[in-house]
Amino acid sequence: GARMKGAGSKSSEGELFLSEAFKVILEEAVHKATDVKEKVCEWKDPEELRVLMDLELGDHGESHQQLLQRVRDIARYSVKTNHPRFFNQLFAGVDYHSLTGRFLTEALNTSQYTYEVAPVFVLMEDVVLRKLRSLVGWSEGDGIFCPGGSVSNMYAMNVARYWAFPQVKTQGLWTVPRLAVFTSQESHYSMKKSAAFLGIGTENVYHVKVDERYSSLHKAFAEDLEAKIVHAKSQGAVPFFVNATAGTTVQGAFDPLDRIADISERNGIWMHVDAAWGGSVVFSKKHKHLIAGMERYLDPIYNPNSYEVGTLYFFGNSHILLFSHQNLLMHCHCANATYLFQQDKFYDMSLDTGDKSIQCGRKVDCLKLWLMWKAIGAQGLANRVDIAFASTRYFVEELKKREGFQVVSEPQFVNVCFWFIPPSLRGKENSPDYQEKLAKVAPVIKERMVKKGSMMVGYQPLDGRVNFFRMVILSPQLNHSDLDFFLDEVERLGNDL
Amino acid sequence: GARMKGAGSKSSEGELFLSEAFKVILEEAVHKATDVKEKVCEWKDPEELRVLMDLELGDHGESHQQLLQRVRDIARYSVKTNHPRFFNQLFAGVDYHSLTGRFLTEALNTSQYTYEVAPVFVLMEDVVLRKLRSLVGWSEGDGIFCPGGSVSNMYAMNVARYWAFPQVKTQGLWTVPRLAVFTSQESHYSMKKSAAFLGIGTENVYHVKVDERYSSLHKAFAEDLEAKIVHAKSQGAVPFFVNATAGTTVQGAFDPLDRIADISERNGIWMHVDAAWGGSVVFSKKHKHLIAGMERYLDPIYNPNSYEVGTLYFFGNSHILLFSHQNLLMHCHCANATYLFQQDKFYDMSLDTGDKSIQCGRKVDCLKLWLMWKAIGAQGLANRVDIAFASTRYFVEELKKREGFQVVSEPQFVNVCFWFIPPSLRGKENSPDYQEKLAKVAPVIKERMVKKGSMMVGYQPLDGRVNFFRMVILSPQLNHSDLDFFLDEVERLGNDL
Repeated sequence: GARMKGAGSKSSEGELFLSEAFKVILEEAVHKATDVKEKVCEWKDPEELRVLMDLELGDHGESHQQLLQRVRDIARYSVKTNHPRFFNQLFAGVDYHSLTGRFLTEALNTSQYTYEVAPVFVLMEDVVLRKLRSLVGWSEGDGIFCPGGSVSNMYAMNVARYWAFPQVKTQGLWTVPRLAVFTSQESHYSMKKSAAFLGIGTENVYHVKVDERYSSLHKAFAEDLEAKIVHAKSQGAVPFFVNATAGTTVQGAFDPLDRIADISERNGIWMHVDAAWGGSVVFSKKHKHLIAGMERYLDPIYNPNSYEVGTLYFFGNSHILLFSHQNLLMHCHCANATYLFQQDKFYDMSLDTGDKSIQCGRKVDCLKLWLMWKAIGAQGLANRVDIAFASTRYFVEELKKREGFQVVSEPQFVNVCFWFIPPSLRGKENSPDYQEKLAKVAPVIKERMVKKGSMMVGYQPLDGRVNFFRMVILSPQLNHSDLDFFLDEVERLGNDL
Repeated sequence: GARMKGAGSKSSEGELFLSEAFKVILEEAVHKATDVKEKVCEWKDPEELRVLMDLELGDHGESHQQLLQRVRDIARYSVKTNHPRFFNQLFAGVDYHSLTGRFLTEALNTSQYTYEVAPVFVLMEDVVLRKLRSLVGWSEGDGIFCPGGSVSNMYAMNVARYWAFPQVKTQGLWTVPRLAVFTSQESHYSMKKSAAFLGIGTENVYHVKVDERYSSLHKAFAEDLEAKIVHAKSQGAVPFFVNATAGTTVQGAFDPLDRIADISERNGIWMHVDAAWGGSVVFSKKHKHLIAGMERYLDPIYNPNSYEVGTLYFFGNSHILLFSHQNLLMHCHCANATYLFQQDKFYDMSLDTGDKSIQCGRKVDCLKLWLMWKAIGAQGLANRVDIAFASTRYFVEELKKREGFQVVSEPQFVNVCFWFIPPSLRGKENSPDYQEKLAKVAPVIKERMVKKGSMMVGYQPLDGRVNFFRMVILSPQLNHSDLDFFLDEVERLGNDL
């Protein structure tokens, strides 16, 4: 019998297309995308882009050549996050081994749920998780790869809730007292999203005050956390989850893990560390002190913890959640589907780890990290972290030498938050409309750089401080000349404001 | 200044590695993986595989050649889900354009949250969602791509809860009465996982009886659904969510959408259709009748609905959730983070759709579907669906001609559930140990095929029926000779049992 007909299903044609498309992808989305002589982005208004891209979907298929042109166009009008001058997000740059791992993952197209269909990846995930736990300082425990940091935080919150009140899994929240979550006011918004999604409610998230510019003393933080716990209890709520942030989204600040741990321990509250952004410091001997305290948690029965390791530089859209307790993750999430997790298989069925997940099919996320690690080793990963810190230091020193640049706070990590004060506003800090005018500077400079395509960086207001830029320094393709260019370009784009 | 040092970050070396690795991936994970003369899997016991793969992670990096060998080994020992004789999961086969879209997605490495960093993909997602809504029969509405069907179901349940009781978002479940979910006893286990995760509890999921072998009348189902709703209310619970399954996981059966809609409408309950498996029938004029009733729901204010379109053949790990209501998704999930969704941008900020999601960074999932659609058109997609139905019919007819094969139920979709009764058990249906012996047949045949590497298919018990095989027919690489081979091979592997 003939193979099923249908355009694109013939193997030889399909493989030819894939090969030719790969060349286009390599040229447009990798080679040119990492070249400083090329633009970071090719800005088009939405209306113009809609027309240019001819996005509408019809009844009939297109030719091989038309489709290749589409691949080229998509790359052309997409933002080059691999570019050394892309500073807009908490991801940037390309790791070639990680990207190879992603391609292989996509080609093999399996799901992480059983040893039967993912033998290599079930074992690989286990190795990666064990290795990361040992770096954190935990001799045993559990873990899982999640589709992003927000989902990781939800997992942690749900497992913590299950530990405190296992009946919630079957009976819902109606049979337990109101629950309270604690997190700093500068923590990621996923804490609120998690509380909303899990049925706990955003108003049951208590925001703890951070110390002015995140001083190393963190006195105010610790005091306010204790006060908020007492307050929540006095209102009849049960504190069950304290989130500590290791690397805040905007400022890259580290909460005082040691102090928070003391308070959690004393109150019997689950401590979670959201290290979605700062987690990569576990690789660096020099900078690991920022998460000092994590290694203390050796009693998984009375004080289980969770620790989310994100980013790890160049590791987009996958996050790793570690638990100090060995079995809670499975107990909390299992549904024992008999069509998938049969109990009469011929191999060790404890390798069918899919029931730990809230997902059914789960993408393979471990390979990209594993292959990168095999390629450069833990020392290579540590070097990247150390280099990023050193480049950040270089950038801050250069910035301070220039007139008109003002840091919002001294960086602890690789985020540098600063204002650019244009000549017309310098020395006018006491004018009544100074803040209002300053607030408008960053958006205009941003618009200009995007339309020019020279670089991209984010800005935001925070806690009463008007719009400032957030520079993030993490791409392995980055060098000092890119940082010098950045400062020059801000001046070029903003000096007339 | 020199570019940051660190193994693997040099562009020319990196691109060379990527190119060579691509050749290996194309050969091992695509070309050989779709060749019927090659094995579907190369079974190794976990202990053996651990040693073979040398998975442990160390301090130092490896050479280019060693890493290429690793890529080859990973492909070699991974299951070939692209193989025409892989029938083990609800995904199978390769679509070359979709795979190209995946590669491009990985290379561009952006996040779907803002127009600023994903201009092409924000517009593209909108086009795909609109097109799918129009196929379902909805003139307006909303939607989102989710990391899998289980997460889609959670989204739907959360949005339905928000529609019924918006205060849950802020105050949690303590301020509302106990909520009740309704779904068939053969629906996917993610309904229970969703209820657990959202704080509703698995015991508040009421399982509705399905009709014997899913007859087209569905009388028992409709009656039991009404009875369960009355029962839940009498217990003080508030019914808020009815899930209808379009294509059950094991049998591929379709719930009676029209009847369920009548009941939902009458009771003012949100109706969700979990079409994660059967959703692709929307493309087929011939088979769309299986979801008849969906097009009725035109009142998004009083009767909002959600519809999850999954799989679409060869579309692994991404699912699409559609809503008939336009704004609920955003209202339910938004957290208004000012560092990401600035309100003073220079473009139409309604294009920053990331706050609809419970994730922060969200993988681009629309491109693989969009490129496949551009390549073969809606007609090509419809053909695939029709061919899969026709091949299923062929398979069932061939199966019935053979002694020892017995279908569990007549297929509605592309799942064929059947027992293989080995010669020693034929005619002994009334022996007291018949069921016990039959239950052991499928696991043994499965073990033998996996160790031989000739093919893979799933089995499971269901509702008192002992282990039977679930054949699924969906790969575009599949032809009739593969189906004949399948039946022959089951006989070869099971005739001595």
